[in-house]
Amino acid sequence: MKPTLGVCYYPEHWPEDMWAEDAKRMVATGLTWVRIGEFAWSRLEAKEGVFTWQWLDKAVEILGNAGLKVIMGTPSATPPRWVVDKYPDMLSVDIEGKTRKFGSRRHYCFSHLGFRAEAARMAAAMAKRYGNNPAIHAWQIDNEYGCHDTTLSYSKSALNGFRNWLAQKYQSPSALNHAWGNIFWSMEYDDFDQIELPNLTVTEANPSHWLDYRRFMSDQVVAFNKAQVQAMRPYAAQPFIHNYMGRITDFDHFTVGNDLEIASWDSYPMGFLEHVLSEETEEWKAHFSNQGDPDFQAFHHDLYRAVGHGRWWVMEQQPGPVNWAPYNPIPLDGMIKLWTMEAIAHGAEVVSYFRWRQAPFAQEQMHAGLLRPDSANAQGQIEALAVADELASLGDIEHEDSDVAIIFDYESQWAWEIQPQGQGFDYFRLVFEQYRALRHLGLNVDILPATANDFGARKLVLIPGLMAWNDNLRHAVDHFDGLVITGPRTGLKTKNMQIPPTLGPDFASTTISRVASLRPNVTIPLANGGNIIKWQEILEPNSSIIETTTDNIPVLVADGKRHYLSSWLDQEGYKRIFSDLCDQQKIETMDMPEGVRQRAIKGKKLIINYNPHDSELNGVSISAAGYLWQEVRCRN
Amino acid sequence: MKPTLGVCYYPEHWPEDMWAEDAKRMVATGLTWVRIGEFAWSRLEAKEGVFTWQWLDKAVEILGNAGLKVIMGTPSATPPRWVVDKYPDMLSVDIEGKTRKFGSRRHYCFSHLGFRAEAARMAAAMAKRYGNNPAIHAWQIDNEYGCHDTTLSYSKSALNGFRNWLAQKYQSPSALNHAWGNIFWSMEYDDFDQIELPNLTVTEANPSHWLDYRRFMSDQVVAFNKAQVQAMRPYAAQPFIHNYMGRITDFDHFTVGNDLEIASWDSYPMGFLEHVLSEETEEWKAHFSNQGDPDFQAFHHDLYRAVGHGRWWVMEQQPGPVNWAPYNPIPLDGMIKLWTMEAIAHGAEVVSYFRWRQAPFAQEQMHAGLLRPDSANAQGQIEALAVADELASLGDIEHEDSDVAIIFDYESQWAWEIQPQGQGFDYFRLVFEQYRALRHLGLNVDILPATANDFGARKLVLIPGLMAWNDNLRHAVDHFDGLVITGPRTGLKTKNMQIPPTLGPDFASTTISRVASLRPNVTIPLANGGNIIKWQEILEPNSSIIETTTDNIPVLVADGKRHYLSSWLDQEGYKRIFSDLCDQQKIETMDMPEGVRQRAIKGKKLIINYNPHDSELNGVSISAAGYLWQEVRCRN
Amino acid sequence: MKPTLGVCYYPEHWPEDMWAEDAKRMVATGLTWVRIGEFAWSRLEAKEGVFTWQWLDKAVEILGNAGLKVIMGTPSATPPRWVVDKYPDMLSVDIEGKTRKFGSRRHYCFSHLGFRAEAARMAAAMAKRYGNNPAIHAWQIDNEYGCHDTTLSYSKSALNGFRNWLAQKYQSPSALNHAWGNIFWSMEYDDFDQIELPNLTVTEANPSHWLDYRRFMSDQVVAFNKAQVQAMRPYAAQPFIHNYMGRITDFDHFTVGNDLEIASWDSYPMGFLEHVLSEETEEWKAHFSNQGDPDFQAFHHDLYRAVGHGRWWVMEQQPGPVNWAPYNPIPLDGMIKLWTMEAIAHGAEVVSYFRWRQAPFAQEQMHAGLLRPDSANAQGQIEALAVADELASLGDIEHEDSDVAIIFDYESQWAWEIQPQGQGFDYFRLVFEQYRALRHLGLNVDILPATANDFGARKLVLIPGLMAWNDNLRHAVDHFDGLVITGPRTGLKTKNMQIPPTLGPDFASTTISRVASLRPNVTIPLANGGNIIKWQEILEPNSSIIETTTDNIPVLVADGKRHYLSSWLDQEGYKRIFSDLCDQQKIETMDMPEGVRQRAIKGKKLIINYNPHDSELNGVSISAAGYLWQEVRCRN
Repeated sequence: MKPTLGVCYYPEHWPEDMWAEDAKRMVATGLTWVRIGEFAWSRLEAKEGVFTWQWLDKAVEILGNAGLKVIMGTPSATPPRWVVDKYPDMLSVDIEGKTRKFGSRRHYCFSHLGFRAEAARMAAAMAKRYGNNPAIHAWQIDNEYGCHDTTLSYSKSALNGFRNWLAQKYQSPSALNHAWGNIFWSMEYDDFDQIELPNLTVTEANPSHWLDYRRFMSDQVVAFNKAQVQAMRPYAAQPFIHNYMGRITDFDHFTVGNDLEIASWDSYPMGFLEHVLSEETEEWKAHFSNQGDPDFQAFHHDLYRAVGHGRWWVMEQQPGPVNWAPYNPIPLDGMIKLWTMEAIAHGAEVVSYFRWRQAPFAQEQMHAGLLRPDSANAQGQIEALAVADELASLGDIEHEDSDVAIIFDYESQWAWEIQPQGQGFDYFRLVFEQYRALRHLGLNVDILPATANDFGARKLVLIPGLMAWNDNLRHAVDHFDGLVITGPRTGLKTKNMQIPPTLGPDFASTTISRVASLRPNVTIPLANGGNIIKWQEILEPNSSIIETTTDNIPVLVADGKRHYLSSWLDQEGYKRIFSDLCDQQKIETMDMPEGVRQRAIKGKKLIINYNPHDSELNGVSISAAGYLWQEVRCRN
Repeated sequence: MKPTLGVCYYPEHWPEDMWAEDAKRMVATGLTWVRIGEFAWSRLEAKEGVFTWQWLDKAVEILGNAGLKVIMGTPSATPPRWVVDKYPDMLSVDIEGKTRKFGSRRHYCFSHLGFRAEAARMAAAMAKRYGNNPAIHAWQIDNEYGCHDTTLSYSKSALNGFRNWLAQKYQSPSALNHAWGNIFWSMEYDDFDQIELPNLTVTEANPSHWLDYRRFMSDQVVAFNKAQVQAMRPYAAQPFIHNYMGRITDFDHFTVGNDLEIASWDSYPMGFLEHVLSEETEEWKAHFSNQGDPDFQAFHHDLYRAVGHGRWWVMEQQPGPVNWAPYNPIPLDGMIKLWTMEAIAHGAEVVSYFRWRQAPFAQEQMHAGLLRPDSANAQGQIEALAVADELASLGDIEHEDSDVAIIFDYESQWAWEIQPQGQGFDYFRLVFEQYRALRHLGLNVDILPATANDFGARKLVLIPGLMAWNDNLRHAVDHFDGLVITGPRTGLKTKNMQIPPTLGPDFASTTISRVASLRPNVTIPLANGGNIIKWQEILEPNSSIIETTTDNIPVLVADGKRHYLSSWLDQEGYKRIFSDLCDQQKIETMDMPEGVRQRAIKGKKLIINYNPHDSELNGVSISAAGYLWQEVRCRN
Repeated sequence: MKPTLGVCYYPEHWPEDMWAEDAKRMVATGLTWVRIGEFAWSRLEAKEGVFTWQWLDKAVEILGNAGLKVIMGTPSATPPRWVVDKYPDMLSVDIEGKTRKFGSRRHYCFSHLGFRAEAARMAAAMAKRYGNNPAIHAWQIDNEYGCHDTTLSYSKSALNGFRNWLAQKYQSPSALNHAWGNIFWSMEYDDFDQIELPNLTVTEANPSHWLDYRRFMSDQVVAFNKAQVQAMRPYAAQPFIHNYMGRITDFDHFTVGNDLEIASWDSYPMGFLEHVLSEETEEWKAHFSNQGDPDFQAFHHDLYRAVGHGRWWVMEQQPGPVNWAPYNPIPLDGMIKLWTMEAIAHGAEVVSYFRWRQAPFAQEQMHAGLLRPDSANAQGQIEALAVADELASLGDIEHEDSDVAIIFDYESQWAWEIQPQGQGFDYFRLVFEQYRALRHLGLNVDILPATANDFGARKLVLIPGLMAWNDNLRHAVDHFDGLVITGPRTGLKTKNMQIPPTLGPDFASTTISRVASLRPNVTIPLANGGNIIKWQEILEPNSSIIETTTDNIPVLVADGKRHYLSSWLDQEGYKRIFSDLCDQQKIETMDMPEGVRQRAIKGKKLIINYNPHDSELNGVSISAAGYLWQEVRCRN
């Protein structure tokens, strides 16, 4: 594969006489793709049914004529004012019951059937207009589902939809009462129409109630996306894409992805460091302040490779300082190149920068572009051009399956949000910290959904924190020759979010007898180094005890190659244990210096240095914010 | 008295064919009591007026036949859905005006007269059914009044009730205007129907307005409880009990208690450490993470002994990890025994564990029971059995009045919540920290209400932070031969929450000239050791000055045995001063090691070690999480 | 000028037979002025149109006869209950949409035209009654506009008013769409009635939308104030005053001030330290806990001297502990004198204490007065008396323009609140920290509005953080011989809050190429001492580079005497740079010890010591909480 670069562009923001020059400069920068259209509804259909295509026709023509491939976005993330006037109840409602007003973006509730149809109608109109246009090479549906906490809504339409969804699922109130255990506090229902959304209860609502609500809302995202795709398919043969956002876990990306050809995500390494990596220390954030977290991007690259069934892009790549994080410093020179190349090493087909020229107005006026508002080249353009040059000489990029995989399951995220049992027990963090330890060991990692029914030729699969087993995953495990590490907190619930009769984990011949959540200033040392933090399960193993605490409490047990890890460990603990088990599986590991990471593809590997200082790996120096490619005979 | 053990049980959660075996195992565990019924309304009256008693009849029969004494709970804490459909406005409303929805428990507003009648009707129906059943030995009314912040409600029914209550109390708006000082900001009313609830005002509402609102809401709890008791009395001769919750201070427990025969409380030492002891340091919480605070349980034991006029139980004893604190670790082995024995040493007639078997479903599925969800014995069962054995050989427990008493007054809690004058000035904490210092000195302490009119044969009485003097307490003090320590902030308000003409404290021949609240990083050293923290009053004493700051500002003054303490002190200050005054009163004290406490009863004393390590007291070693009984000739 | 003292008094709070004695004691304390009436509406007009003037007539008579000059307040800050019953929709609405209830004060929305007329009617009635009364020497309009976050309201009347205001300003929706850049996210409007208030949007609303809303609300305050002034002018010839509050920046004080003769403010040094100086460290707050911040009062004195066009008072001076800060300690003995004399050295005509006697009832019962509630002299009275004595012998106070001025602009405050771009970027703090550095250097400072069109004979003018240039200020700069320092973040926006085509700052021959906001634990060292904190701009200078970072990034550039400072600096950085530039301008500076400050007037200067310990300046010792006057030949 020959990866290419792109950029996001808003012709409606600029005078028409600038478009041709912009297109020319894009090509001169080495860009292949240009995304347009996704926020332009008010200019395409200013009044219901009255379309104004001419300006967009012209923009597509100019961009296409310049040799660029256009990704056309459907504009459902920004329904104009008249749509809200038509459907006043389409606005989403927050957890406190406050309606979220028009005036920014993403103001619709996914469950509103009227707006869903309106969005599909608009998407179909675009597909009819541009489906046969040779400049259009891909479609983006909507923009950043779930961003600004918009998956969950407590609107009237959500309530009605939830009741119907429950009626379909359970068929009778008594079946629902049983599945949820509503006898517990006399919470039994006689009628589906008695059921409320689970917000604003006196103390927490039934976790099964919450989990079904979360599944319902995720299903609405899936349905909303599918409605547009289905409306467009008859008119458009190009691939469909959605651009997901980092650490947005409120809907099942895998399921949405099943209706699309390509997955993409919007990669803002520095914005994410400050905005969503709340668990990191202030020192960590200061160290990586101008670079971003060294594993966060890689995690999402690997995740979306799975969501896209192998085909994935970075749709929006941070090109300089952004406007939306608590602090918005300037990337170190070189980081834009590094982020781009890192994505490519993880298999990105396209890396597209957001945005072409910084807009001097409205909400994102402080968000850098490749160009400054005065059209001068910004640092982003300089680095994009340099990367384009390098890519020309880099040769084919060929991704191979990794030896190591880790399961990521959105439903488990919801389950442990609903019932953390200890403050700070977050599923994403649990998976991410195991992933980080694997990266520290220099490993390539694949991420797989919990619906995987085959692990392929892999040698090691990790399944931390999985709420409940399912038949597919059981099958995959049962037919897998490699080593499996499950836990902590894997298999500890049924699908209805109850404790299974066996207590769990139904794996590795052990039983979870008790669990403890730990305060941040309490840790429990392992006998051989590292510590338990946050979460400890007490096991009753009928299997080999591989690791214990200094007090001889079992921590890692195994029945052959089936391991169960009882506790959340610190990085030292994870690295030591994973390293040992990799050794068993003949997976080569190395201890990477902090901030230095690597990613192997066929025939070579990329070594990157996220540090603000030069670093050394095996005697080779990598400059601050720099990277280098090394030939390798075979993957790690 | 021969203390006994019990357990909370939910037959409706388990198949009927498990009940007999459960009952048998309860008896084998040494349990005498079993509480049932308090959340089962939806199974007893699934539709209005349609009762289904058969299953409960059967459960009572099985438990009774096994030799267990049944405590039957009225189910008003969990009104089923049809009750809410009948009275949609019975839901409580939070301070921001949001209605608190059905879906968990305690969703009713205490002020709603329709629901109050409904709850009394249901209670009467239970009393009629089971009042003569020989297996029933006690009744529990409702469950944990005030839990989940449910005492205060800002509903329409609260508003109407409050206006009526004010009209009854003041008779005319002008009397109310005068009592509240409404002239201050032109807040005068012409009509009781102009008066709003005091939430959501622009800046704080009049403190007198708030205080009357708090009194009104407390009165609603009293009336709600009394309505059930009165409806049941004609049919049920057994004692009535309520199970209060730790550090819930929104209603007057003494007044509720006056309508009941026995007080009980729900003791969750580790849950409370993390959930309600917010003032303790992180280090303190880490040290006691698996044991609980060493004074919190004792304080409540002593409090409820007073609320129950000497008769009190622990209705729910933590049996292992719970689900509701920010962190939920596992108790150290031995702590369940320790907590049980400690309660008994404080005079508990019954200690009852919550719950028999961990429920695998719904909100509390992560809350341990004596049994695991798979019916295996959990650690709770093992320790309950061991305590039952010990109790059999312990002999009679005879409680005696303590030499030392401290006043606890709910109205003062409300007053200083309304007007802390310094962040973190909390009445409960003020009393608790003086109590803790007394316990550090090895003393037994009695807690008395502010309505006490006689201190008996006690030698030392503490009255910290009392908002306003009342005739009873004045009488008690005037007729008391012992030493009295009031202050800080005692007698500084009238009943209407105004500054008295004398300025206060109207005690010990001194006047409060000025007060200062101190930021946490400002302390003022005492001349002889210890520090003022949080709160300092400047006195104009016409009495002896006993203690001063290093700058010679009076801190403790006395007119004979009547002492006034001007300031909130740290533990060092309290201990030194209390120790000196105990010496004067010939009350023997000792300096207990941190985490070690003792409680004397007639003929013996219990020494307990809340530390996670062995400790020593007077040359005797007490193991970690352990205790021992010592013979004593007379109480200390 | 001969400065005088005053006090705030509430005759309606006390029996009429106390008034004469109170008046006599005021005079004996050396007080000249007494403010009354501003919260007494319910006693003046208990029902609509039914006035009760007699008691106030009597009070004025008694106070006047005692020789006191009366300031009469209009009572619009506390509309009585019947007014709210008449206009239920006059209540303000908070940002979450909750109506703010009656029961304290300031419960009106400035935009409500009905209440605005009602307030003007009442003010006119007072003017008619007392305009010719010889005891009345001044009027106060309302009380503390904006206190308790009352400038901004999201009511229906605000919404309607805002739509009209926008229609007047923009004339067409398309003009507004263009000015705001609404194309950005399809936020375009067809009709002014589609525009909502900018609260409760899904993510942030358009910053231009917010800024216009902020301007609209500020205009409502101006209009509300003007309505009263205009209604009163025909009947009252005395000067009109408003008493502003510390660090209230939600409306433009300069514009309100243009309709009044005198500015005043309410100076609560210790309250402000704890309540509004949130950026200071805990150590700083502990050090100044009993004194207040050493620059906060001076800043406001200098600010209100400008708002009052030279005529200004302290209307309320803290006389002891207050009730409303998080912690309310007691001022060090001497501080009340110090605060008073400091105000006088900054040019206050009158310093008036709040209040005469501590009220024993209602919200402020814990707020000290000059007298205690029992009428004994409190420390406030003792120090007021001492200051009055000193003033008698002090001679005339003559203020002169300072060499140094700094611009303060309310609109810039709103702009950077709307778009901080980095957490903690607060305009007030930016200006205040530059001001503090100047004070550290021993300088007198004048504060000027951004509408200044002439800097007079000054030698140095600072213009930090100005959102947008205006013609007046351009003119002032263009015609100024002195040295100008602008930046950081000066001139970086247009009036519509967009990035200017030049990128800014349009000053000192440099261009802002990029900006970075820094997290608190990241600082960037300057080459010659001091650090960049919070905010850094990357410049493209065509001018001299005066200062750089250690990495040679330009920090201070100059085109002749026109300097641009790119970054927010710490005190060390500011002091060093300002000191150097003062040297250039032959402005004498000195390095004042922390907590010691000075203020020069004609012929002498006041040296004050805010420290809780004695301090030394140039060999002269100033006692803790003390001050001294020194003769000077000419101002520094």
